[in-house]
Amino acid sequence: MGGETPIEGHLLVVWGVPEPKQDIAALRVKYPNLKITYKQASVAFSDPATIARLSEEDVSDDEWLSATHLATMSYLPPARLVPAFTKNVKFIQLTSAGVNHLAAHPIFTSTSIPITTTSGIHGPPISEWVALQILADSHLQRTMYKWQSERRWVRAAGDSTLGFRDSVGRRVGILGYGSIGRQSARVLTAMGMEVIAYTANPRTTPESKRDTGFIVPGTLGDREGTLPVAWHSGTDKASLHAFLGADLDYVLLALPLTGSTKQILGAEEFEILGRTGAYVLNIGRGESVDQDALIAALKKPLGEGGLRGAALDVATPEPLPESSELWGLENVVITPHVSAWNGRYLERTIGVLEENLERGARGEGLVNAVDRERGY
Amino acid sequence: MGGETPIEGHLLVVWGVPEPKQDIAALRVKYPNLKITYKQASVAFSDPATIARLSEEDVSDDEWLSATHLATMSYLPPARLVPAFTKNVKFIQLTSAGVNHLAAHPIFTSTSIPITTTSGIHGPPISEWVALQILADSHLQRTMYKWQSERRWVRAAGDSTLGFRDSVGRRVGILGYGSIGRQSARVLTAMGMEVIAYTANPRTTPESKRDTGFIVPGTLGDREGTLPVAWHSGTDKASLHAFLGADLDYVLLALPLTGSTKQILGAEEFEILGRTGAYVLNIGRGESVDQDALIAALKKPLGEGGLRGAALDVATPEPLPESSELWGLENVVITPHVSAWNGRYLERTIGVLEENLERGARGEGLVNAVDRERGY
Repeated sequence: MGGETPIEGHLLVVWGVPEPKQDIAALRVKYPNLKITYKQASVAFSDPATIARLSEEDVSDDEWLSATHLATMSYLPPARLVPAFTKNVKFIQLTSAGVNHLAAHPIFTSTSIPITTTSGIHGPPISEWVALQILADSHLQRTMYKWQSERRWVRAAGDSTLGFRDSVGRRVGILGYGSIGRQSARVLTAMGMEVIAYTANPRTTPESKRDTGFIVPGTLGDREGTLPVAWHSGTDKASLHAFLGADLDYVLLALPLTGSTKQILGAEEFEILGRTGAYVLNIGRGESVDQDALIAALKKPLGEGGLRGAALDVATPEPLPESSELWGLENVVITPHVSAWNGRYLERTIGVLEENLERGARGEGLVNAVDRERGY
Repeated sequence: MGGETPIEGHLLVVWGVPEPKQDIAALRVKYPNLKITYKQASVAFSDPATIARLSEEDVSDDEWLSATHLATMSYLPPARLVPAFTKNVKFIQLTSAGVNHLAAHPIFTSTSIPITTTSGIHGPPISEWVALQILADSHLQRTMYKWQSERRWVRAAGDSTLGFRDSVGRRVGILGYGSIGRQSARVLTAMGMEVIAYTANPRTTPESKRDTGFIVPGTLGDREGTLPVAWHSGTDKASLHAFLGADLDYVLLALPLTGSTKQILGAEEFEILGRTGAYVLNIGRGESVDQDALIAALKKPLGEGGLRGAALDVATPEPLPESSELWGLENVVITPHVSAWNGRYLERTIGVLEENLERGARGEGLVNAVDRERGY
């Protein structure tokens, strides 16, 4: 690749980490006609409130205005530069799969610069986090660590008393069947689980079931959408409730945060999930859940409408305050929004960036381009 | 099934757990012409030293001698009854996948009664344990639990510093490619891992790669042996060392304990695995490993010949004494021989038993019949 179509211009990379020198050097070798400027933003990239301030301090006006391509975590030019910036820039490659944190920025609201996400690169690590939390719960990993720390080889009264389970025949509903949902389905079906997919829009044709986004090489995801035993869809309560009532053992929230997914699970929905004592996993956004209602459902006993448990990589707010009741619930696992972390995040982001540089140079449609109306 | 061929005789079930009344009642309904006697042995089934004593106390001579089929954990008739017992019994269905604990018993050494194992039913739970331990290590589950217990939403310095990893492109060598190895391969390849299989005998033809044993409905295992990217074989050191040197990130011991698998991994082998800082998982028998050599390799630093870590569901001896250094190693997970536990163990054992009752009545070969010479 890369050799056929000349990749030219000025790529401005603004990330909140020290320059990954090997990766950037490799890009320079691959695209000798592309000028590359790397700027490290001085504040952690996950704090949307700092986006504007940062951009003023860490990147000069000249740097913003000479860019033809921007690769960024959350950092965007200040509003006053947007009109001039817009003239040169061919696309903005984010490092995140979601864009909701940028939805109020003038780049988003008043330009049509293509914004591309890293949707797809999160499939492998997050699906592994999902499998890990399901298995850690069903194979009593916390108890295993405790026994080990006590140096006790416990056999108790055999298999039946301790609650060990496996996943064969268990049913998982996946809310949001994008790249993360699909790779999760890949792993969970390999374990013998049944997957039911839920999407906003109906997916009744082979085309509509297809995933056209980026898939990490070496993994399969579910390109053709053949893994689910059933698909549900809709943006209304009745459709959602029919899905949640489909005898689910697990429900995985793998949703972008948009107007229609905010608090998509609340008291009513947990009441339905409580009937089967479902286990809830959230790797999307904390705001997709009514957290107080979730806590109430987690505190109810199993068999009396309670949830089996929850694994949460996201919370409201983040960081989750020390005082939150969630921390102390025994049937809850909390991880601090790290499910996508895998040490190869930037390497894979660059993989998407390269694909888009090349598609762009060939005049093709970009992979993972955000639909501003849809919000993802 | 069952309706076509009459299943007759006297099934003696000797298990070390209270009668699973629903399951036994269902068997009686399914096979009305089969007399079924359930005896609960009075000592935990996992203690081979007590087999002979137990059988005298818990099962009467008449019960042993009237049986046409025996379903048992480890309990076998006393030696003095074996000649008479042998005349009536069509097969012995064990609840275990291994038989090495029975290898000195006269039933094994001086009769040819077919002994069938539950090989295959352990694939799903144990493969889940394998995936769980790989993921718990690479996604820092112990650290996650610790942060949660401290109510800390830690983001540290981002993805790259903490050591989170995912499994895409990692290479796992599976020593012993039976049903457990195969279902593990199914799950791990879904996560994007590469599998290399190692077997005692060469598997160069499609027939020899095939798994003819029991596979739990709902899971696929690897019936045709198509998942590995490469197969190694042999019972000599050179073959083993070539396999261990094939750039492995993980090695999974899924071996029966026989003369040729005893201490199959020792100091020399850990030295090879240390070159790639491999992670060792053992779900077979503790004796397959030179445990002192393993401990030494685990204590060496990574990058200086040390192993990344180990997950051990088996140990030498069992129970592992409180004084063992293994308990306290930070890169080790120990679970007390529970990886097969899943709450549906007996239900699945009965699934194999039913298949064999029906195959037997039809005069067909039994599934999972032990080859006494091979030892499994």
